[in-house]
Amino acid sequence: MYIGIDLGGTNIAAGIVSEDKKIVCSDSRPTLSERPYTEIVADMAGLCNDLIKKAGVDISDIKGIGIGSPGAIDNKNGVVIYANNLDWNNVPLAEELRKYIDVPVNVENDANAAAYGEYMECGGDMESFVAITLGTGVGGGVIIDGKIYRGFNGVAGELGHTMLVHGGEHCTCGNDGCWEAYASVTALIRQTKAAIAEHPDSMMAGDIKVSGRTSFNAAKAGDKAGREVVDKYIEYVASGINNIVNIFQPNMLVIGGGISNEGDYLLNPIKEYVKKHCYCKAVEQTEIKIASLKNDAGIIGAALACGQ
Amino acid sequence: MYIGIDLGGTNIAAGIVSEDKKIVCSDSRPTLSERPYTEIVADMAGLCNDLIKKAGVDISDIKGIGIGSPGAIDNKNGVVIYANNLDWNNVPLAEELRKYIDVPVNVENDANAAAYGEYMECGGDMESFVAITLGTGVGGGVIIDGKIYRGFNGVAGELGHTMLVHGGEHCTCGNDGCWEAYASVTALIRQTKAAIAEHPDSMMAGDIKVSGRTSFNAAKAGDKAGREVVDKYIEYVASGINNIVNIFQPNMLVIGGGISNEGDYLLNPIKEYVKKHCYCKAVEQTEIKIASLKNDAGIIGAALACGQ
Repeated sequence: MYIGIDLGGTNIAAGIVSEDKKIVCSDSRPTLSERPYTEIVADMAGLCNDLIKKAGVDISDIKGIGIGSPGAIDNKNGVVIYANNLDWNNVPLAEELRKYIDVPVNVENDANAAAYGEYMECGGDMESFVAITLGTGVGGGVIIDGKIYRGFNGVAGELGHTMLVHGGEHCTCGNDGCWEAYASVTALIRQTKAAIAEHPDSMMAGDIKVSGRTSFNAAKAGDKAGREVVDKYIEYVASGINNIVNIFQPNMLVIGGGISNEGDYLLNPIKEYVKKHCYCKAVEQTEIKIASLKNDAGIIGAALACGQ
Repeated sequence: MYIGIDLGGTNIAAGIVSEDKKIVCSDSRPTLSERPYTEIVADMAGLCNDLIKKAGVDISDIKGIGIGSPGAIDNKNGVVIYANNLDWNNVPLAEELRKYIDVPVNVENDANAAAYGEYMECGGDMESFVAITLGTGVGGGVIIDGKIYRGFNGVAGELGHTMLVHGGEHCTCGNDGCWEAYASVTALIRQTKAAIAEHPDSMMAGDIKVSGRTSFNAAKAGDKAGREVVDKYIEYVASGINNIVNIFQPNMLVIGGGISNEGDYLLNPIKEYVKKHCYCKAVEQTEIKIASLKNDAGIIGAALACGQ
């Protein structure tokens, strides 16, 4: 078995993952990211040892620890080159953790680790696979020939930061018009608020705290302005997915993140859009699905990527 | 040695390619694409036999024939699934050619074959490599781990048909806002004509036949409107390239096609743009270059892809 660690800006979530890809037991601690990295890693080690005790296994049963970390990762050396939300530069994450626990440590970008988890959950036998996450941002991970595709410098797969709307909305990355600035939950909330301002009589105006669900709930209840927000949002999501299909033609593309809880209500119009707009219609088409692991993808993917 | 065939809508160009990646001798014939495919293939076979004679080699010296064909290709079976400009559907190209010449035949998409040629010319030892062609359209080819990346259905790498300008110009593929509709020579000519209509006093208005060179020539001669066309065009090219870099982070990206003859005048501002806009600046960056094989890439790439 392996330990998978999903290192976030807010929490460190970890779990023991069995050979049959299931989380045996899991736990989490706050990251308290303003601390020196050495303290954070000490907590990660403590969390691993607690899990080992809790599961009643021996350290010799753990074949490896996999960490999914935000930022740019040097996978070969287990170093976090740069992670904005942790304020980390060149942190030797694997080396530091191995001071506490003597097992192999593998460090991946968190979106890549989650994509690998979803890939393995879907059988782990496809030639090519893409996972996207519609969350606070838009994340992506690409698996080719069974391996995480990282690019030569480790930072490939930034699917959310490809320009979709030339000269469009400003993105957190500093550029304008990124897919993320139109297809993230953050973008959907912005779009929803704009529609409420324009249609104060809309059902959406009743939501005290506008969320990613506000427009979807209103649309499902027959609210016209809500329907318009959702239709437009889904078109942005779908056109970005269509780009990915035209580029990668993966066997499968899965959609995760908070918005993916909308299920078929989100998925069906995306499938329709891609069917209509994909470049080559004469061949077998990419299967598009809602991700199945959801929040566990990070832990499971990080763990299983150890055995890659 | 191998034979490489670059099958186009207008001409069939073929060449014998040596182990050291050079064209030993080459020739071409008109495609006359309205004929039945059997006649076109018979001409391809005749062209191959002529080349063998001309080069004074024996058929047993030819290890394989590689064909770069437009359209969607089933590489495993050597079938052209669909090629719009040849009006071909499920043409068994390899099988048909083998009726005339008994050597292995490999069929690739033409853009992929050209990309593979450029990859081999650049050493053939990079983990990841992307070639784009700024021609009548915008073509692309991706090489990963030394192999042409085709996707599960053979039609991956349609980089020109990714949306860059949401709701933008109509593209030949039927969608709106494709990168190709902004970065191809066809697009540049459209942009140039629009600028001439707006600035009839521009030097560009003197060009009897507006081409992809019109605006570049005017810009270099100090014409303000020409400079504006070129700046805007290069920004479209560069933002699409920046997308590719954020997705693939390839070791190298090369730019081919007619416009690439502008050399550093085109390349330097693209490099500047990507340096400024790429998502992760803390790591080693993709090398961006002008393609070196130019028109020979198709023949050389198709030939060398036989030995892949």
